[in-house]
Amino acid sequence: MTVRFGLLGAGRIGKVHAKAVTGDANARLVAVADAFPAAAQAIADQYGCDVRTIDAICAAKDIDAVVICTPTDTHADLIEQFVKAGKAVFCEKPIDLSLARVKACLEVVRAHKGTLMVGFNRRFDPHFKAVRAEIDKGSVGAVEMVTITSRDPGAPPVDYIKRSGGIFRDMTIHDFDMARFLLGEDITEIVATAAVLVDKAIGEAGDFDSVQVMLKTATGKQAMISNSRRATYGYDQRIEVHGSLGMVAAENQRPVSIEVANAAGYTRPPLHDFFMTRYTEAYAAEIATFIAALAGKGRAEPSGEDGLIALALADAALRSVAEGRVVKMTEIL
Amino acid sequence: MTVRFGLLGAGRIGKVHAKAVTGDANARLVAVADAFPAAAQAIADQYGCDVRTIDAICAAKDIDAVVICTPTDTHADLIEQFVKAGKAVFCEKPIDLSLARVKACLEVVRAHKGTLMVGFNRRFDPHFKAVRAEIDKGSVGAVEMVTITSRDPGAPPVDYIKRSGGIFRDMTIHDFDMARFLLGEDITEIVATAAVLVDKAIGEAGDFDSVQVMLKTATGKQAMISNSRRATYGYDQRIEVHGSLGMVAAENQRPVSIEVANAAGYTRPPLHDFFMTRYTEAYAAEIATFIAALAGKGRAEPSGEDGLIALALADAALRSVAEGRVVKMTEIL
Amino acid sequence: MTVRFGLLGAGRIGKVHAKAVTGDANARLVAVADAFPAAAQAIADQYGCDVRTIDAICAAKDIDAVVICTPTDTHADLIEQFVKAGKAVFCEKPIDLSLARVKACLEVVRAHKGTLMVGFNRRFDPHFKAVRAEIDKGSVGAVEMVTITSRDPGAPPVDYIKRSGGIFRDMTIHDFDMARFLLGEDITEIVATAAVLVDKAIGEAGDFDSVQVMLKTATGKQAMISNSRRATYGYDQRIEVHGSLGMVAAENQRPVSIEVANAAGYTRPPLHDFFMTRYTEAYAAEIATFIAALAGKGRAEPSGEDGLIALALADAALRSVAEGRVVKMTEIL
Amino acid sequence: MTVRFGLLGAGRIGKVHAKAVTGDANARLVAVADAFPAAAQAIADQYGCDVRTIDAICAAKDIDAVVICTPTDTHADLIEQFVKAGKAVFCEKPIDLSLARVKACLEVVRAHKGTLMVGFNRRFDPHFKAVRAEIDKGSVGAVEMVTITSRDPGAPPVDYIKRSGGIFRDMTIHDFDMARFLLGEDITEIVATAAVLVDKAIGEAGDFDSVQVMLKTATGKQAMISNSRRATYGYDQRIEVHGSLGMVAAENQRPVSIEVANAAGYTRPPLHDFFMTRYTEAYAAEIATFIAALAGKGRAEPSGEDGLIALALADAALRSVAEGRVVKMTEIL
Repeated sequence: MTVRFGLLGAGRIGKVHAKAVTGDANARLVAVADAFPAAAQAIADQYGCDVRTIDAICAAKDIDAVVICTPTDTHADLIEQFVKAGKAVFCEKPIDLSLARVKACLEVVRAHKGTLMVGFNRRFDPHFKAVRAEIDKGSVGAVEMVTITSRDPGAPPVDYIKRSGGIFRDMTIHDFDMARFLLGEDITEIVATAAVLVDKAIGEAGDFDSVQVMLKTATGKQAMISNSRRATYGYDQRIEVHGSLGMVAAENQRPVSIEVANAAGYTRPPLHDFFMTRYTEAYAAEIATFIAALAGKGRAEPSGEDGLIALALADAALRSVAEGRVVKMTEIL
Repeated sequence: MTVRFGLLGAGRIGKVHAKAVTGDANARLVAVADAFPAAAQAIADQYGCDVRTIDAICAAKDIDAVVICTPTDTHADLIEQFVKAGKAVFCEKPIDLSLARVKACLEVVRAHKGTLMVGFNRRFDPHFKAVRAEIDKGSVGAVEMVTITSRDPGAPPVDYIKRSGGIFRDMTIHDFDMARFLLGEDITEIVATAAVLVDKAIGEAGDFDSVQVMLKTATGKQAMISNSRRATYGYDQRIEVHGSLGMVAAENQRPVSIEVANAAGYTRPPLHDFFMTRYTEAYAAEIATFIAALAGKGRAEPSGEDGLIALALADAALRSVAEGRVVKMTEIL
Repeated sequence: MTVRFGLLGAGRIGKVHAKAVTGDANARLVAVADAFPAAAQAIADQYGCDVRTIDAICAAKDIDAVVICTPTDTHADLIEQFVKAGKAVFCEKPIDLSLARVKACLEVVRAHKGTLMVGFNRRFDPHFKAVRAEIDKGSVGAVEMVTITSRDPGAPPVDYIKRSGGIFRDMTIHDFDMARFLLGEDITEIVATAAVLVDKAIGEAGDFDSVQVMLKTATGKQAMISNSRRATYGYDQRIEVHGSLGMVAAENQRPVSIEVANAAGYTRPPLHDFFMTRYTEAYAAEIATFIAALAGKGRAEPSGEDGLIALALADAALRSVAEGRVVKMTEIL
Repeated sequence: MTVRFGLLGAGRIGKVHAKAVTGDANARLVAVADAFPAAAQAIADQYGCDVRTIDAICAAKDIDAVVICTPTDTHADLIEQFVKAGKAVFCEKPIDLSLARVKACLEVVRAHKGTLMVGFNRRFDPHFKAVRAEIDKGSVGAVEMVTITSRDPGAPPVDYIKRSGGIFRDMTIHDFDMARFLLGEDITEIVATAAVLVDKAIGEAGDFDSVQVMLKTATGKQAMISNSRRATYGYDQRIEVHGSLGMVAAENQRPVSIEVANAAGYTRPPLHDFFMTRYTEAYAAEIATFIAALAGKGRAEPSGEDGLIALALADAALRSVAEGRVVKMTEIL
């Protein structure tokens, strides 16, 4: 079975998914839509597919599934539109910045027994997957404490910050999902600290650029997240899982593994510059998982519910910072 | 100038300090006291010094300074007794488990213009000192976020737990001091999570074995501490400092640096088994610093005040766990 | 300009090159030939190209260049045939196992002003390229000593050994080329030791499985090569270059970079299983270099001459082992 | 039993051994002799022992053993003198630069049933010992190939070079002993290449500064040694042992294990500056082994015979370079 795809959104991440779809032997890219026709045309030219409108793609008989890479504020509407039309949907995170809107959207998905997978790409990174595989194998025993370090090379423009929902909903959200993926238990409590250390303009826009979070489950498993919008040495992405029998960790990745030694010491090159180079394999594996799930092999996860919970954790983190206290997830969801 | 020492307490840590004092060209071990005469005699035999009572050491004209390694509940009284007698005092942490008692003790030290240095040995570890030196050199710019991982190989007996004042006052206290040493700014806020994951008996004794702490200074600098009484792979002691220009980290240490590779992969041996082997150099450097300070070179730090603040942070962490909220240090001190 | 390709040979390495050609935006795979029609058809089906005979490809007007992946004993004849037909040729190493035959073949290439690039894939590995880039940048000063470690996970079947020309012509030949690539000077002397330690059958076939080689240039620069047909921990591929100002090294690569720590120590997974996974990026970059050179960007190197010299070094190594002495390259070439 | 020591030679290495002897609970330093009385007196002052003449130490009833750290050309005579006087002898390498003189000296030792241990300190380095322990445990199966990298931070003065017997007898000799220690079999063949790349004056003095050596045993086990008098990044001391089941390696050591990361990459400090700091623990363990052997625990190894063979390998290496061929050890010994 070949899954026939429509691509909604031909921006940076849209191109990544176009490559993933066309590179998968079990899928075909049929059409692409974008508010900027030139962007859609560029993808159409490169991969030999049509340019169509979103509505045309939704109505098309030769399309089974869509990948949604449009701006965030269109996600929930598009998910509902395409699920109602019987298309399987892969949507970039987040579903929406409003928890209520996400809940309503998932209600529609459920009502139409739709398939919705949310793009938490890091679950598909081969190194992080290998960490999870070690947990599943029992290599570290019962998971006790998780540490996630996630630092962006630099802060995005303040305009982006304003639309993004803030650092917890835009950046930490990936770490919330990763913590859930690794803890294997619902998070029940959360507390966060936050500061503006990198760029005052971020603070003026009402956001933070340096945050720390602690999470806890009902049985006392714990996780820590450390985030910053600054890392001069590249895109810092590490996880560490401690269990009753030991520890498993994923190291940082760099484009080349060389070392130069001289009187100044031993120097290895900086890390990957950002997510586009760091998570190349993850993006391809993510789409491959979606395609396989549509063919009945495995599940289309992370699900809409996973997207909802990660967003709820972001909301809880914000409340924790505002009120200087531990927030119980039952207060949010 | 040769500093003439009395040693109070001939237990495990007393032996470490006896070796450090006798190995220092600027010091001499004159006498040792212990509630168990055989323990004192063993040290006297090995290093050719006297066995005396504590009071005799306090009265002795041939003794300039003492190292206090007796049980915790005697520390404050002994500090006061020896400071009044004009002796310089090096005391193992903590000064006392009661913040009020520590304050009263420091009042006496101040009133007698006494010299008191507290044994936070980790500041003297060559690797951690090198981290601090990089900060002082400006290698990482302005410090922004500190991460401290500190995991004991195994939990102590529950009897010890009961006398220790709990994990925050016994174990995390070192990390509180290290965070202050690295942040270079007063900590103003603290929040902690805590659980019993390793040994139920610890929970029954009213303590925790797995804790996480977040700290914040007035300017928004942040620190995270992760502690566990369990680390199957050895004594896990890492620090990582992020600043505006970069990052500096100290790696774990192991007794031998070899690697065996076979079909199962590449394996390096476990870490040091615990603090006695991990911090050998730190203990010697700590005493050397005290001796040098008495000779006018450098300062006898960490001070009694440093001991007080670390204990106050432990008290604040406990309150944070009890009340599920961020605690301001002005509430405690 | 799009380079139109014919592929000769549809075996394991043929498939690798088919993927590289079709994945390159500046090339197109037009036809494939193989003695086993089914193998050719499989590639034709996957990439939508023709199956043709070798002679048809040679005569075709719609083909500019070929990639030769047929058995070694056909290489020299095919190079001559296609060069005479005006096609650019990329040929897997070696050109032939006989030095005389290689010389004659290169004479034909020269006479027809043909383009011939030889497949020493390792020059295109991103890590090794980065090592060479550091040399070119002057990071290590004048190159003095090179160390190359190259160990196969396991020995090939004895049948293969017999056809391969032996370990020096089949395996060390890559390291000879790498040594030249890194030394930047002609090798003038060589001495080798050789033994059978892995598989007696290899010795019975007249070959070795464990060899060491030392190389020297006219100015005294030196290189060491260590080869074995056994490495239980994966495909061991390391280089280290020492110069007047410092050292640059390329580390081994593994599919996933995780580490598991427990009472047995800290364990990272084995290395890549062999060249097909280790050199994925190198194979693609190699073909991209050939394509770019045909478009006038950069040179089609390593050249036929590079192939000749690497083979001559293998012959010299064999003579060195047989005669227990240092062999001068002027004796061979 | 306490072993009572005389120390012959109060130079740099004499001080190291004085510290080792006085720090060992089973030994006592009784007297020290040196051609420069002030050097001897300094040690006597520090450790509270006598200054005596060599002859007085030899005649002394209160001395059981000597450590010989005098200039190389006195070693053999002193060994003979002290062995005849019934003293146990620990002698720094080499016994003599002349193979014939060493043989004659060992004859005297044998005739008097003397105890002679030779100072190949590296066997006692905890990391290299751990490598050997893994071999003995069977972790790597049957040893097949050994690689030793040994690079000095800088070249010694040419005056020293002239007295040293050249790089093979002065520097590589340690690696010859290490190769024997790890191979566990007699070396039967050797071939070397040599060049002057670091300092022309070394060449003018008739020596080399950059050498490579290959060794082979009767069963085909092999070893490679790479030596240079230049390493800008510190004292480079690595060993790697490949066997039928896997590999074991010892990494380089540095004084502090920190890492600084910024836009230029990840930098660790240089290695130890030279043998005095790199092999601190090895020197102490070496003397402890000698002391223990005198008390009947373990053997006084490396023996005089080990010293003889290492020197013979150096002679063979020189002949190999001069004659451009593999030299059989039966030609030398």
